[in-house]
Amino acid sequence: MSDMSDWPVLTLAGGPVQVSDRTLRDQSRPVLYHNDPAFKALFASTCELLQRVYRTRYDVVIMQGEALLGLEAAAASLVSPGDKVLNLVSGVFGKGYGSFIEKYGGQTIELAVPYDDAIDPDAVRRVLDDQSDIKFLAVVHSETPSATVNPVRAIGEIARRRGVITIVDTVSGLGGEVLSPEAWGMDIAVAGPQKCLGGPPGLALLSVSPAAWDVMETRPQPLRGSYLSILDWKRSWIEQRTFPYTPSVSSIYALESVLSQVLEEGIERHAARHQTIAAACRAGVRALGLRLWAAREAIAAPCVTGVAMPEGIDDGALRGLMRERYGVMISGGYGDLAGKLFRLGHMGPAAHPTYLAAQLAILERALVDLGHPVELGAGVGAAMAALAGWGREA
Amino acid sequence: MSDMSDWPVLTLAGGPVQVSDRTLRDQSRPVLYHNDPAFKALFASTCELLQRVYRTRYDVVIMQGEALLGLEAAAASLVSPGDKVLNLVSGVFGKGYGSFIEKYGGQTIELAVPYDDAIDPDAVRRVLDDQSDIKFLAVVHSETPSATVNPVRAIGEIARRRGVITIVDTVSGLGGEVLSPEAWGMDIAVAGPQKCLGGPPGLALLSVSPAAWDVMETRPQPLRGSYLSILDWKRSWIEQRTFPYTPSVSSIYALESVLSQVLEEGIERHAARHQTIAAACRAGVRALGLRLWAAREAIAAPCVTGVAMPEGIDDGALRGLMRERYGVMISGGYGDLAGKLFRLGHMGPAAHPTYLAAQLAILERALVDLGHPVELGAGVGAAMAALAGWGREA
Amino acid sequence: MSDMSDWPVLTLAGGPVQVSDRTLRDQSRPVLYHNDPAFKALFASTCELLQRVYRTRYDVVIMQGEALLGLEAAAASLVSPGDKVLNLVSGVFGKGYGSFIEKYGGQTIELAVPYDDAIDPDAVRRVLDDQSDIKFLAVVHSETPSATVNPVRAIGEIARRRGVITIVDTVSGLGGEVLSPEAWGMDIAVAGPQKCLGGPPGLALLSVSPAAWDVMETRPQPLRGSYLSILDWKRSWIEQRTFPYTPSVSSIYALESVLSQVLEEGIERHAARHQTIAAACRAGVRALGLRLWAAREAIAAPCVTGVAMPEGIDDGALRGLMRERYGVMISGGYGDLAGKLFRLGHMGPAAHPTYLAAQLAILERALVDLGHPVELGAGVGAAMAALAGWGREA
Amino acid sequence: MSDMSDWPVLTLAGGPVQVSDRTLRDQSRPVLYHNDPAFKALFASTCELLQRVYRTRYDVVIMQGEALLGLEAAAASLVSPGDKVLNLVSGVFGKGYGSFIEKYGGQTIELAVPYDDAIDPDAVRRVLDDQSDIKFLAVVHSETPSATVNPVRAIGEIARRRGVITIVDTVSGLGGEVLSPEAWGMDIAVAGPQKCLGGPPGLALLSVSPAAWDVMETRPQPLRGSYLSILDWKRSWIEQRTFPYTPSVSSIYALESVLSQVLEEGIERHAARHQTIAAACRAGVRALGLRLWAAREAIAAPCVTGVAMPEGIDDGALRGLMRERYGVMISGGYGDLAGKLFRLGHMGPAAHPTYLAAQLAILERALVDLGHPVELGAGVGAAMAALAGWGREA
Repeated sequence: MSDMSDWPVLTLAGGPVQVSDRTLRDQSRPVLYHNDPAFKALFASTCELLQRVYRTRYDVVIMQGEALLGLEAAAASLVSPGDKVLNLVSGVFGKGYGSFIEKYGGQTIELAVPYDDAIDPDAVRRVLDDQSDIKFLAVVHSETPSATVNPVRAIGEIARRRGVITIVDTVSGLGGEVLSPEAWGMDIAVAGPQKCLGGPPGLALLSVSPAAWDVMETRPQPLRGSYLSILDWKRSWIEQRTFPYTPSVSSIYALESVLSQVLEEGIERHAARHQTIAAACRAGVRALGLRLWAAREAIAAPCVTGVAMPEGIDDGALRGLMRERYGVMISGGYGDLAGKLFRLGHMGPAAHPTYLAAQLAILERALVDLGHPVELGAGVGAAMAALAGWGREA
Repeated sequence: MSDMSDWPVLTLAGGPVQVSDRTLRDQSRPVLYHNDPAFKALFASTCELLQRVYRTRYDVVIMQGEALLGLEAAAASLVSPGDKVLNLVSGVFGKGYGSFIEKYGGQTIELAVPYDDAIDPDAVRRVLDDQSDIKFLAVVHSETPSATVNPVRAIGEIARRRGVITIVDTVSGLGGEVLSPEAWGMDIAVAGPQKCLGGPPGLALLSVSPAAWDVMETRPQPLRGSYLSILDWKRSWIEQRTFPYTPSVSSIYALESVLSQVLEEGIERHAARHQTIAAACRAGVRALGLRLWAAREAIAAPCVTGVAMPEGIDDGALRGLMRERYGVMISGGYGDLAGKLFRLGHMGPAAHPTYLAAQLAILERALVDLGHPVELGAGVGAAMAALAGWGREA
Repeated sequence: MSDMSDWPVLTLAGGPVQVSDRTLRDQSRPVLYHNDPAFKALFASTCELLQRVYRTRYDVVIMQGEALLGLEAAAASLVSPGDKVLNLVSGVFGKGYGSFIEKYGGQTIELAVPYDDAIDPDAVRRVLDDQSDIKFLAVVHSETPSATVNPVRAIGEIARRRGVITIVDTVSGLGGEVLSPEAWGMDIAVAGPQKCLGGPPGLALLSVSPAAWDVMETRPQPLRGSYLSILDWKRSWIEQRTFPYTPSVSSIYALESVLSQVLEEGIERHAARHQTIAAACRAGVRALGLRLWAAREAIAAPCVTGVAMPEGIDDGALRGLMRERYGVMISGGYGDLAGKLFRLGHMGPAAHPTYLAAQLAILERALVDLGHPVELGAGVGAAMAALAGWGREA
Repeated sequence: MSDMSDWPVLTLAGGPVQVSDRTLRDQSRPVLYHNDPAFKALFASTCELLQRVYRTRYDVVIMQGEALLGLEAAAASLVSPGDKVLNLVSGVFGKGYGSFIEKYGGQTIELAVPYDDAIDPDAVRRVLDDQSDIKFLAVVHSETPSATVNPVRAIGEIARRRGVITIVDTVSGLGGEVLSPEAWGMDIAVAGPQKCLGGPPGLALLSVSPAAWDVMETRPQPLRGSYLSILDWKRSWIEQRTFPYTPSVSSIYALESVLSQVLEEGIERHAARHQTIAAACRAGVRALGLRLWAAREAIAAPCVTGVAMPEGIDDGALRGLMRERYGVMISGGYGDLAGKLFRLGHMGPAAHPTYLAAQLAILERALVDLGHPVELGAGVGAAMAALAGWGREA
């Protein structure tokens, strides 16, 4: 086993996040044969838990790979050559989705905003009204790299009214907001366990509407017999309670554990906890004279807080110092945003006043170490002031 | 957490297999952010361990999904429309590979034998000599559903001499034999952690030859930007030490653990242990008057032992009884072989006299329960007799 | 961390025994401060579980040290100088208890039988009738070193009718028989988690009758303010829900876990499982032509089976071979019995056909290795034959 | 398993402390039979690690119960009726030791200071000079309830020069200072794993000088054959590598783990880390206008920081709020000190800037909730300012 002495004390990154002890213990249950009746029962129960966390009666599919597998699978399964797809771009992940659309022959109509902003539903409406042959709409709910959220509810309602099938990347959205695939018009939603749910990565968590199934099954040459096939899971697991291939047994254990923990806490409380901590984090950031990356508070994400890199501070130096000297791992910018912002993570068990205080305190300390003038304690104090109502409802 | 009272005592199936306590403990190390330097160091070291277990200097790629992902990725990455692929079929998995070849536009030349037999290298030579435009050869090293092995070394050497690129499914082969990708002419080998390595499922372990990289990179429209892309891992991890997407952190921990355990034992000893236990298992099976599924001992697999279902015994009844009454989970036949054989697993930590004795004793007990006349203890006794040399070399 | 490559595959000794995965996982819950309300609630609930496993309404006390601490504490807390104590001796542990009696000033009246035999209740009756000033009676329920049991129920009833206070060492008895402290006249019973309960060692589990409390409290100079004091736990935990000192937090977690597992299985089924496996083990031993250590079946213990060392076989050689070559750890004789017998353990999770078969198979193999003529498989076969009814009731 | 939803997020109490993931994982290694050669090797190696952490060549003894067992054992093993023992009292634990001395017949000479102060070595010298028949001296190194330390080095040197045998309670001292039993004149030192070493409770860790062995062995009626006997461990483990009774297998695993971790960090760095964090904690406390309990900084403990309860704040309300609302468990006063102070814990892994910041932030938040006027962030800021040099030496 590798030496762990250089591991961070706290992982407060943009995901994967630090996982609760209980999750790690549950993940380490003995590995079962996937056709063992006990494993099948556990898999079935995990699917039910996932439906409850998604708050949906749609089918759910747990794909055995990172969330990105589910996102690509949605394009590969839905999009036929020539299909027009409205791709909403408010960040790196939204931009990237265009390449999946095109890989599978779709024609991308891009509606983009700067990467610190969010999509305006009215703009979506106008595009859909203009181009009535748009068949699909792809949108990122929570743009983790930008630490912003899009108004997927409003967007989904618009799409649904026009019969446009939606693909919603809610990888870091599920658990941070109270969703409703039916009400929000989400045809295929894709989430990951390693963000607000507070689990380890390795699975793609899909909710699939009947309309989406219909498209997949009735298109020319439905995608079957592939690791990218969502239909394979329908035919095997949903219809016959068999697996198309060996699922990731231990990852399913961990997923069952985190879903149970979310439901024990209550989905509403879980989401509210993330939102409250995110607001407190923003208060702390402002008190330090730092600038939020998000153009405005209303579109700041519940899962991470993006902070514009202060003038004269090097991204690698700041995060390196926090990590090496103080044991706190946070995330930087990603892709085009590298070096422009850093991100304070508050997902899963880390969405808590203790970890927020620790994170801000170390950020302050590291900024001072680098010669950036902040008042030690000011960010923590403002964040804690914003938490005056914490824990009072119980 | 689900009630575990109905979990089996011993999982001796065709994989996933029961995993050592140490592996479970190592898997439960805290979840790191994948861009944390500590995780990158661990991932790099895991790749080196994998190279040592494969006994290769070829690049290795760890794909973040079940072994099947790696198998499909090999077809998707190598095969261009019109390419001729010799697909060797000695079982369900070999047969199934044809559909991947065709999905990606290849033309399958099938060389098949009955599913209790193995491919004859001379037949391969003849086909390749006959059809010099064959570009790829696909072969399953260890046909887990049939519990047989193919002579991949001889086949690989034939292919290499002719410049045919090979795709070797050694999912349940790695760890049960001492391989050498270079010497054996394996261009893309795909293994899984959940078989002879004794780990949990969820990863595909690839060894890739320079010739295979060359085909992937120089073909028209190289496969990039996809969960199925092997090249993505070359460009990101191998060349830049970044990840194309979030890897399965906990699964990597478990993989590092099982690879370390294999290397501590020694690859030769590890493989020999599997082969010795498999031979003892076959001795036990014969002593019970049961018939091996494999046409002859020489092609019986080290990882599982296939036993022809005795006349009058129902597969579900036998395995159900072993599982429900005695807590021992074994595997049945798969696909076309369902009901025709059952399989006694002896992979990973379970390749040991204690587990073999337990498994055979419960098999005997269950057969007697079902009215099949075997002498209780006879199989165990014969197996133990076959282990007269066990542990003497140390 | 020490290298674990030389650890045994199966620990089937006289206790500690191999512990279930669930127990290990539960034991590894985060360490709480002992005055944390969550820990106090867990400790209280563990005491209730212990009462249910003991099937008593007496107070229970969990002392924070090995079972021996509880046994010494009973003598130290009850016996005053000059008190006459009838000490029943049918083995090493019974014999040893005399030294505790004398250390605390008691006068030992010893009633002894050979170490392969059990105490006759009639003999107890006669002694008590003869010496009406006997105040205490000490008896070992399950003499682990001899693998025999004493009829504690009959003995306890005799003692109770005469007002004699009993100290019952049921360290390896609890869980292997269905006890009833009230009905069986057990004033202080002392059990351990590391035997039939299948947990790790480190605690002494006491059941204390009102009569025993009365003696402790009313004797001259009650024992208080000492690690050996049972009264300290009454005053602090039972009466005030405080701890006299820091309890072994992790050990309490493990205890809660094993008690829960016993109760989920059902105490009757748990005990019956031990007895059935013990009977099958004896059948296997006899079939190998070996001699039980116990003078007769009726007094053989449910927790371990003692086997007289065969002529010409060296204890160290036999057990060393089983351990080093085959990874199975069993126990030898202890104290005066060293070299005279070996003991096959079947406690806790190991009281199962699979582990029994594995153990007997390795015993056979090792005996043959040493040149002792046994038929390989004969013991396993006989044991499995004796298990014809296993698992049929469910 | 009990519901864990009400468990604290951070345990920052006076011990037991929150334990590292690695320790919990190591503790959960499979339970071995204590006579298994692998366990004996691990126990032996653990003793060596303990010697290295104590920085001694004296024998070490690991007693199988809470640290208090070792403290009572020292009195029980050394003190004969009539022996004069100088008992130094600067807190609850020191005061309490007198009752052990008297229980075993000793005559206590008490030298006491107020419970916020430390013993003056000159006063010790004077008493010893005055009463040359004093045979033993008992002193508490780190008075956890008062969060103060005594100058045990100076005291020990004085005692040694006069041939007085010392009993040093360093339960929460080992790991927080760099000790040297030989140089500091510590004849019997008793430590616990659950304080600065950062492990779970359940063991007493003794270092024993040849002079102490000599007293134990040559006194009338040496204490043998008892759970309280230190000599039993000498005769069995030290001299014969056997155990007087079953050791707490899992607790030994955890101890091996924490000792290894301390040595990997380096004893000097480990102690310095505790002292630096303690100093920063005091800076934070002062910045909040709170009063240290310790009469002066120089005698404040490295393991916990005692803070005088602010006027008008109720102990139960403050700590209850921190625990229930914010998930942070700290300790209150103990015994005579209950309600007079609260204690901020920074032991083991928690001796780190992140946990200190979290703890102070929650303390501030809770004080404000209770209407006590502190500036949110002021304590954290001052503590972080005091950590300007943290992590720079590496």
